[in-house]
Amino acid sequence: MTFREDFAALRRIGVDPEGGWSRPAFSPADIEAHEWFLARGREAGLAARYDAFGNAILRLEGETGRPAILIGSHLDTVTRGGAYDGAIGVLAGLEVLSRLHAGGHRGAPVEAIAFRDEEGRFGPFTGSRAMAGLHDAEALTRAKAADGTTLAGAVAAAGFTPDNAPRDWSRVGAYLELHIEQGPVLEQAGVDLGIVTAIAGQERMSIRFVGQADHAGTAPMDQRRDAFAGAARFAEAFRRMIRAEKGGDLRGTIGVVKVKPNLGNVIPDEVTMGLEIRGTSAGLLQGVATRIGVLAEEIAAAEGLQLRLRRLYSDAPVPMADGPRTALEDAAADLGVAPARLPSGANHDAGIVGRIVPAAMLFVPSRGGRSHCPEEYTDESQIELAIDVLFKAVCVLRRADGAGLAEPGGLQARPR
Amino acid sequence: MTFREDFAALRRIGVDPEGGWSRPAFSPADIEAHEWFLARGREAGLAARYDAFGNAILRLEGETGRPAILIGSHLDTVTRGGAYDGAIGVLAGLEVLSRLHAGGHRGAPVEAIAFRDEEGRFGPFTGSRAMAGLHDAEALTRAKAADGTTLAGAVAAAGFTPDNAPRDWSRVGAYLELHIEQGPVLEQAGVDLGIVTAIAGQERMSIRFVGQADHAGTAPMDQRRDAFAGAARFAEAFRRMIRAEKGGDLRGTIGVVKVKPNLGNVIPDEVTMGLEIRGTSAGLLQGVATRIGVLAEEIAAAEGLQLRLRRLYSDAPVPMADGPRTALEDAAADLGVAPARLPSGANHDAGIVGRIVPAAMLFVPSRGGRSHCPEEYTDESQIELAIDVLFKAVCVLRRADGAGLAEPGGLQARPR
Repeated sequence: MTFREDFAALRRIGVDPEGGWSRPAFSPADIEAHEWFLARGREAGLAARYDAFGNAILRLEGETGRPAILIGSHLDTVTRGGAYDGAIGVLAGLEVLSRLHAGGHRGAPVEAIAFRDEEGRFGPFTGSRAMAGLHDAEALTRAKAADGTTLAGAVAAAGFTPDNAPRDWSRVGAYLELHIEQGPVLEQAGVDLGIVTAIAGQERMSIRFVGQADHAGTAPMDQRRDAFAGAARFAEAFRRMIRAEKGGDLRGTIGVVKVKPNLGNVIPDEVTMGLEIRGTSAGLLQGVATRIGVLAEEIAAAEGLQLRLRRLYSDAPVPMADGPRTALEDAAADLGVAPARLPSGANHDAGIVGRIVPAAMLFVPSRGGRSHCPEEYTDESQIELAIDVLFKAVCVLRRADGAGLAEPGGLQARPR
Repeated sequence: MTFREDFAALRRIGVDPEGGWSRPAFSPADIEAHEWFLARGREAGLAARYDAFGNAILRLEGETGRPAILIGSHLDTVTRGGAYDGAIGVLAGLEVLSRLHAGGHRGAPVEAIAFRDEEGRFGPFTGSRAMAGLHDAEALTRAKAADGTTLAGAVAAAGFTPDNAPRDWSRVGAYLELHIEQGPVLEQAGVDLGIVTAIAGQERMSIRFVGQADHAGTAPMDQRRDAFAGAARFAEAFRRMIRAEKGGDLRGTIGVVKVKPNLGNVIPDEVTMGLEIRGTSAGLLQGVATRIGVLAEEIAAAEGLQLRLRRLYSDAPVPMADGPRTALEDAAADLGVAPARLPSGANHDAGIVGRIVPAAMLFVPSRGGRSHCPEEYTDESQIELAIDVLFKAVCVLRRADGAGLAEPGGLQARPR
């Protein structure tokens, strides 16, 4: 089987009648995809198993005492998502291990991993966080999907244990991941391959302005405490603040807006916004997060509104590690490919694992920058080129002295 | 019975266990209130009837051939609304007719009317519009409440006909209405009584910006087509435009905002806003409505968004008529009251009837400007003073030559 044949087979699992692919974590389609993955690994002569959380692992044993090289990504999708996000990275691992096994190559052990629930049906990166041992066990028992399904119930029903399932990371030398870019940079640069410099950190917060509901016809303009007018003023100033940071790769988005009472002839008395910022500079992220709070306070005071600001979530940036990144750079050069170097605005399993072991990532272009939708697309020739680069880098890393790999790039791992 | 006793009795109907009063049009509580009103009229010796739509009418006959003086308002409330909005105007009519009847006063016939559905459960002012003959009969058959109840079903179940029920308006000399201000102007001015100069017209529109949903982490800031960023920019500019019109009494509100997909890590691709402007100058309203469209187009172009603007509803301002307004002014002066003169930003049944016959309105203060909530409050002594002014004005109008009344203040009546 080649990558193209495997990809064609995987694309038959979880086809959504309403369009795209729906393989939400621990759903029947997701379970079928993981079973298929392990079965394909066994066919290719690899050891196949699940860990206690349900992450699927293929392993090619190697020289005794050498730390393993991991290749990972995910098989779950968002609802009506695309065929490429996550899937191609898992198939790349299968392909690399199959080639290594078939070719009788020697070196360190190698694993291909499909992490569960990268898309966060039950919370961010629940599979790789379980393998990293980063979960608060009590919080796991409360985790729920938007449809009310509990993580504990879904994991147990699939035959696994809803708890941390930490591995011995001292026996791991490096982590590599191939993923679609999910943005327009590579396509616009006309480049087939990207090498990730760092995975952006993020700060998420909820900002609520509370004013007073009044009759839209009777309240004079200069006496209103209009929560949406305040929210709009804040949103404009927030975007100006983010755009003014031209030096970095800072991104800021207000994706969630809820207005109450949301009636045509009533001045809104409450607007709640969900806001996030991302960037690869930890200092800049923290500084901007602080300035956002000051800005919201100033606007609330000027508009006669009350402010409730909550910091919901904070993840530090994870720089990619020199060792595996250089292996990818060298492999690309050997194959005559000139990759672009870019940060990843989206987080990935590499952003979790990369806090513990040296990690690096390859990106392939996303047509039109689209992802999380049925239109998601990458040329298969570009994916095959990336797999060749990945294969070559793994061969080098398998033979490298473990001590030659750099320290993990992430800051101190911290439980959520 | 006095006004205070009647008000205490009416306040027992439709008390909502969750707070305030809920007498939605044609609900059991609303039907009970109208039955109570007609029964009280009969007790007071007045002729009591419903028209074909269910508007409740008390009538004191007078000199043959003289056109009638109408006193109207409404008994329905919004959900968990206040006790005063509408109710005190209907009770004022009952009180004035009772006094006239008890005192044996002579003059033109007088009616006290409780219009159905002023609060628009089934559409704006369905009762007074039915009496004015302004409904599109076909549209009435489709009218529905937010809870799915059809107007046709609710009206028929109450024993009435869901159709226009026009009266012979040539037999009407003037219309008067007493209402709470629903705004803060009278209270802040320290005045017990307001005389309305005009009822504001309004323009309602729906503005939709459509952009592109992208991953909040991967889409560069300068390549986004963020529908909420465009909407916020528009909302800021819209408020500046309204506030810049300092000469008039223009008000502008964005009360409804719907964001899609409304997810934390996705750039919004669609924002729909419900916007309204109100003012007493028809020319200014139309001019500003046009400029709003131009502004939305400019911002859509600058932000790379598509625009869909729909004009939903248009009501011209209704100036109050000289004849009945002067009668109210003179009555107030006779009683030693110095009323404020102010426009009504909210529409009222007087804004419907006033397009056909000469109409005028009295306002009493709303504490804190609040209405449509359980906290709605006006001192009963202020209401009684207003009833005295209304009584005196009606006495004068009953004796006036019908030809002495001014033309109706509204522009050409137009069906919706």
